[in-house]
Amino acid sequence: MSEQWWQQGSKALDIPARNKARERQQQLTKPAGSLGQLEHLAVELAAMQGSPRPQVEQLWISIFAGDHGVVAEGVSAFPQAVTGQMLRNFVSGGAAISVLAKQLDATLEVIDLGTTLPLEPLRGVHHLHLGAGTQNFAQGQAMSVTQLLQALDAGQASVQRAREAGSQLFIGGEMGIGNTTAATAMACVLLECAALEMVGPGTGLDSAGVAHKAEVIELALELHRPQISEPLDILQRLGGFEIAALSGAYLACAQQGITALVDGFICSVAALLAVHLNPDCRDWLLFAHNGAEPGHQRVLKALQAEPLLDLGLRLGEGSGAALAVPLLQLACSLHNDMATFAEAAVAERPA
Amino acid sequence: MSEQWWQQGSKALDIPARNKARERQQQLTKPAGSLGQLEHLAVELAAMQGSPRPQVEQLWISIFAGDHGVVAEGVSAFPQAVTGQMLRNFVSGGAAISVLAKQLDATLEVIDLGTTLPLEPLRGVHHLHLGAGTQNFAQGQAMSVTQLLQALDAGQASVQRAREAGSQLFIGGEMGIGNTTAATAMACVLLECAALEMVGPGTGLDSAGVAHKAEVIELALELHRPQISEPLDILQRLGGFEIAALSGAYLACAQQGITALVDGFICSVAALLAVHLNPDCRDWLLFAHNGAEPGHQRVLKALQAEPLLDLGLRLGEGSGAALAVPLLQLACSLHNDMATFAEAAVAERPA
Repeated sequence: MSEQWWQQGSKALDIPARNKARERQQQLTKPAGSLGQLEHLAVELAAMQGSPRPQVEQLWISIFAGDHGVVAEGVSAFPQAVTGQMLRNFVSGGAAISVLAKQLDATLEVIDLGTTLPLEPLRGVHHLHLGAGTQNFAQGQAMSVTQLLQALDAGQASVQRAREAGSQLFIGGEMGIGNTTAATAMACVLLECAALEMVGPGTGLDSAGVAHKAEVIELALELHRPQISEPLDILQRLGGFEIAALSGAYLACAQQGITALVDGFICSVAALLAVHLNPDCRDWLLFAHNGAEPGHQRVLKALQAEPLLDLGLRLGEGSGAALAVPLLQLACSLHNDMATFAEAAVAERPA
Repeated sequence: MSEQWWQQGSKALDIPARNKARERQQQLTKPAGSLGQLEHLAVELAAMQGSPRPQVEQLWISIFAGDHGVVAEGVSAFPQAVTGQMLRNFVSGGAAISVLAKQLDATLEVIDLGTTLPLEPLRGVHHLHLGAGTQNFAQGQAMSVTQLLQALDAGQASVQRAREAGSQLFIGGEMGIGNTTAATAMACVLLECAALEMVGPGTGLDSAGVAHKAEVIELALELHRPQISEPLDILQRLGGFEIAALSGAYLACAQQGITALVDGFICSVAALLAVHLNPDCRDWLLFAHNGAEPGHQRVLKALQAEPLLDLGLRLGEGSGAALAVPLLQLACSLHNDMATFAEAAVAERPA
């Protein structure tokens, strides 16, 4: 293969803007460091936006949805039809992410990458239909190379639309019954660990269900590991359409210079895969929360992520990222609008 | 003493509203429990507000400020004049809490309970001037009984104003150079532990400063412990005007039926003291964050608190509580506006 788009470099951070923002943080009327992670956040946003006074007002949320063949192995608490039903719910405004997008005044788009039961055309949904869901990765590879490339491109296309709309923050979300199974299998390969160390209840399996899921994943890993020679193989053999699209989106965000706020376990696995495809993209990723799925913390650690929230969330849909948006916005307001010691005639601590 | 106002009962929670809210959470289009702490939050707000559809739109922030005689012992990184200087900064809009109040569209009032250097009258500040700061508790009791009662009443009066304004959430903040020393001493008595286990850098002491602060507190505890027979003694001997006002405010919130969102270490100690004065008030307290001050976690544990944020904050001023407000608001929006499985025609998981 010749060089692919995702192998190209990311936009460079603006180091002078970062330094100016860091200096400003030291001058604001508060003990140095007393705003904790929010200070670092404002400084990193300044570096990404190339402005010592960053803003996070224009928000973009893309939900990537797809079905998973591995559901045939009995790895999910919910029936597969829920993927398509939830697409309708996103559009009609009843899903968690729909409510959050409205409250945050964010643009919300939905990308249907392929459900088992084809859907009627839905307003506001991009129906790409790469297939009737992925194939069952317990039996063979989850998707073809063509499907993989289409899914990566779908993520890039979303980021392109976000950029054209002037977005300052990109949130990717996912919907796909069975996708914690796919993400867990991917994480096991990326982090070189056994399924039992990584597996969790997903949307609500009991302990027998979790044990079965671990077994399904472990057998699939035996099948695929010998064939895996590069990160793309992991996506193709074990991933999902929506997971590949998320990886593509994170890579595109870094290239196009839009901050990406990564949601939960599945999104974090997609981000880890993106970093394996092109380590450059890591600079453009912020992490919203440490979720309830057991493997999430391990994936975040591998990414050296410092998530903002830890509320036991495990919904997906980009909801955890949306919930963290006000922290980014308030971090910017504090950074931009607080008075300096000199402006407020407040004594600094003696040196 | 006859019965004091804070010994009277709290407003009862609305158990039917709580049950209805809990049932609704089970019917929303998400895996049960997948919104983590936010589900519990919406349910508890429903119980407090007596409505299965709670709202947190009318916000009230009272900042209580006072100086501390114990600063004479060299326990703070900042000069004492900063307390008064920051009062001016609150009013002119340059302080962190001023910026946050504006962004959240919250009412912000400031109560000057007594600074060492008297201040000119400031617009929007209640100047109560109970004294030129507290006395040095390393030498004797921090305040008189009269000052203590006035400070408790000042907290109650703020809550009364919040109630008259129709507030749905009360945030108390504090400003007072030296007040981590006072709060730490109080916490040592309340939790029966040594100063060294509880002490921290406050606004920015180095390790020698922290060790000195621990020594000052330990000696003061030796002086006062034999005289302490009830929680009020702890406030009077070791507390601060602003800490007593916060305790009064939390007690009044519970009686008047307004949810209080507790900020950082100093506010949490005031809350723990309030719970010792009247355990009834605990039901009306939510906890915003786990701060950077080492004793904070111990105090939160004693209160069985589940804080919402953990961002390494240690600014005070009510800023950590203000930062958690969007989570309360979004928890309510999700609770109120998401579709049920029946409304959205989404399959529930098989029983």
